[in-house]
Amino acid sequence: MSTPLISQNRPLIAILGSGQLAKMMAQAAAQLGCRIKTLEAKPNPEPLLNWPVQVGDWNDPDTLVAFANGADVVTLENEFIEADALAELEEEGYALHPSAATMARVQDKLLQKETLANAGLPTAQFRAVETPEEIFAAAGDFGWPLILKRRKLGYDGKGNATIHSSDDVHSAWEKLGGGAYALFVEQFCPFKGEIATIITRARPKNGESPQTVAYPIVSTLQQDHICHTVSAPADLTPEQAAIATQIALKAVEAIDGTGSIGVEFFVMPDGRLLINEIAPRVHNSGHYSIEACHCSQFENHIRAILGWPLGSSAMRAPAAAMVNLLGNSDGLAMPSGLNAALTIEGAHLHIYGKSRSMKGRKMGHVTALGETPAAALASALRAAEKLRFGQI
Amino acid sequence: MSTPLISQNRPLIAILGSGQLAKMMAQAAAQLGCRIKTLEAKPNPEPLLNWPVQVGDWNDPDTLVAFANGADVVTLENEFIEADALAELEEEGYALHPSAATMARVQDKLLQKETLANAGLPTAQFRAVETPEEIFAAAGDFGWPLILKRRKLGYDGKGNATIHSSDDVHSAWEKLGGGAYALFVEQFCPFKGEIATIITRARPKNGESPQTVAYPIVSTLQQDHICHTVSAPADLTPEQAAIATQIALKAVEAIDGTGSIGVEFFVMPDGRLLINEIAPRVHNSGHYSIEACHCSQFENHIRAILGWPLGSSAMRAPAAAMVNLLGNSDGLAMPSGLNAALTIEGAHLHIYGKSRSMKGRKMGHVTALGETPAAALASALRAAEKLRFGQI
Repeated sequence: MSTPLISQNRPLIAILGSGQLAKMMAQAAAQLGCRIKTLEAKPNPEPLLNWPVQVGDWNDPDTLVAFANGADVVTLENEFIEADALAELEEEGYALHPSAATMARVQDKLLQKETLANAGLPTAQFRAVETPEEIFAAAGDFGWPLILKRRKLGYDGKGNATIHSSDDVHSAWEKLGGGAYALFVEQFCPFKGEIATIITRARPKNGESPQTVAYPIVSTLQQDHICHTVSAPADLTPEQAAIATQIALKAVEAIDGTGSIGVEFFVMPDGRLLINEIAPRVHNSGHYSIEACHCSQFENHIRAILGWPLGSSAMRAPAAAMVNLLGNSDGLAMPSGLNAALTIEGAHLHIYGKSRSMKGRKMGHVTALGETPAAALASALRAAEKLRFGQI
Repeated sequence: MSTPLISQNRPLIAILGSGQLAKMMAQAAAQLGCRIKTLEAKPNPEPLLNWPVQVGDWNDPDTLVAFANGADVVTLENEFIEADALAELEEEGYALHPSAATMARVQDKLLQKETLANAGLPTAQFRAVETPEEIFAAAGDFGWPLILKRRKLGYDGKGNATIHSSDDVHSAWEKLGGGAYALFVEQFCPFKGEIATIITRARPKNGESPQTVAYPIVSTLQQDHICHTVSAPADLTPEQAAIATQIALKAVEAIDGTGSIGVEFFVMPDGRLLINEIAPRVHNSGHYSIEACHCSQFENHIRAILGWPLGSSAMRAPAAAMVNLLGNSDGLAMPSGLNAALTIEGAHLHIYGKSRSMKGRKMGHVTALGETPAAALASALRAAEKLRFGQI
């Protein structure tokens, strides 16, 4: 860091990653007077936000420590950075939120499930498997179908394979590189819906139990394993919503998370809630909070990791919905159809400004507010349908 | 501009100025995927936002043209840049919004008054004065007191002098450098209150009359000639508010403004409205719109200058209030009292991140939402009172 930056008292937040989550964190941080720098694995000729971007291997402890120099706090936008490397940052005295221990508990999905189960929280049944034979044994206990998963580095459906019957075992094992990669199986959940929430938990101070806020429970709809739409609030009874919130709070406590953390659930046909997955970072299911809540998941993340008081997570509109904007094909950052989309009443456009559109890549999102979740979703979809990324 | 920046289709907006208004424009532009660069007269070791800042004389046409290279549109955050220099930008083919002609009509306050009067819009009586004797003559027609003003470069009470009686004429003339500076006098307005609004007017397209939106009429309270608080909506009858909006729309048309433009009024004891001043840019009295309106004055400014459809200026809360945060003394950018201020329910903090606090300098603002303007103002003041800039 050059001297002028250190010479005054604006907090400097070092973010590992420079994608849209880092951008939206930076936007919230900038409003509060903070400075940002980011570390990115690959050079990007066109950063989303123009804060300094350092390029380097974020799994290399020396790179991490050099990058963190001068920062008041280090945070991250993805869960894939090696917890061992992150631990060395903490050993060097840097404040990392969420902590390396939290990241270790979450990035290994088997350990995540064990952590939740040990805390008495509901998940699908699961078991580590070291050979194809152990998959057959698990099926004997859990029944078919099973989901075979890599313990690490899976996301958006990548690193998973569904095993419908014994016929699929060997092909699934080979697809995921069993033997080379550590795998586990989960009981398939024939869920009737998916819900999610964001919990923001402040960094601990003076041994007090940390301040925590829970965002509304939302309904999520996945398409091709990627979050497609979010509707807030979810169509649940107050009792169900309260149960989901309690489970999410306990889950975040179980991993000792700090900052904004996404918790995803399956809603089973009998009404039971099972935790699907925890994302130890701001989460796609909370983007609607920028417009719909008093304090967004991004601002609360910044407040939490700086040790500042958290803001209200309550909604300031009766309902809201978010629709992801995915690249339709290879092409430029800005979509066609902007003029039409901007005329949709109540819709708020977010264009991330990525250097290129690619098919299926998250290029932006639309949030709409409304009197009901259905009305908000209709507005958001109406705007989203006008926009085409890549086909210009 | 380097090649990668030009190689893709994110709009590049060149802003003359890099203060808090540029920062808030940049925040809105970034959400829509745009890129920003700014031109600043003096080097700033610690920019508010980390978009590229070029340092140069913005009254020099060559500097302006070199700066604008590669930009899709040029805009500005202050009204002091010489209209003649700006005109050369347009002659070089750059899109400038608001235009050089608009800036010429506004930055000369006598010409601004004449433009408004010629459009039949209500202002205080005024007259150019070239000698102290002409001030006495004006007093004969308008009565004492009079306000003597410089035609150019006045702001926040600077460049003005009140003349209570004939005894003050010569001292006021000398204070403002009469002879060296072109001056005019205005009838003193014994107003009972001040109100303001923001009009956003799109750049003209295909000869159609440009889309225009009007923000709510707000009450403003000045302290030491600087905007202290804004309450929205103003305490007016619907008829009065409609009249103010109509006058503001006509005023912006009279100067042929584009983008978001502030219009300030005096409310006279008999209920008459007089236009006090037009600011051809986003305006302090519209900062509340970030949280309180569907589409903020900043996002609508970006939409307007890019030729995109405008968003709704309607409020999304019953009431809102804004309080400016001024430097209490010389010191650092971040205030003391943040933890206390962040706990005030409904208050949204904006810390501009200026490199130093100075007494009276605008360092940030607080917007609060509420059920009534009074309740919102109470919340905003409660948060603002916790914050001290410089006394750390």
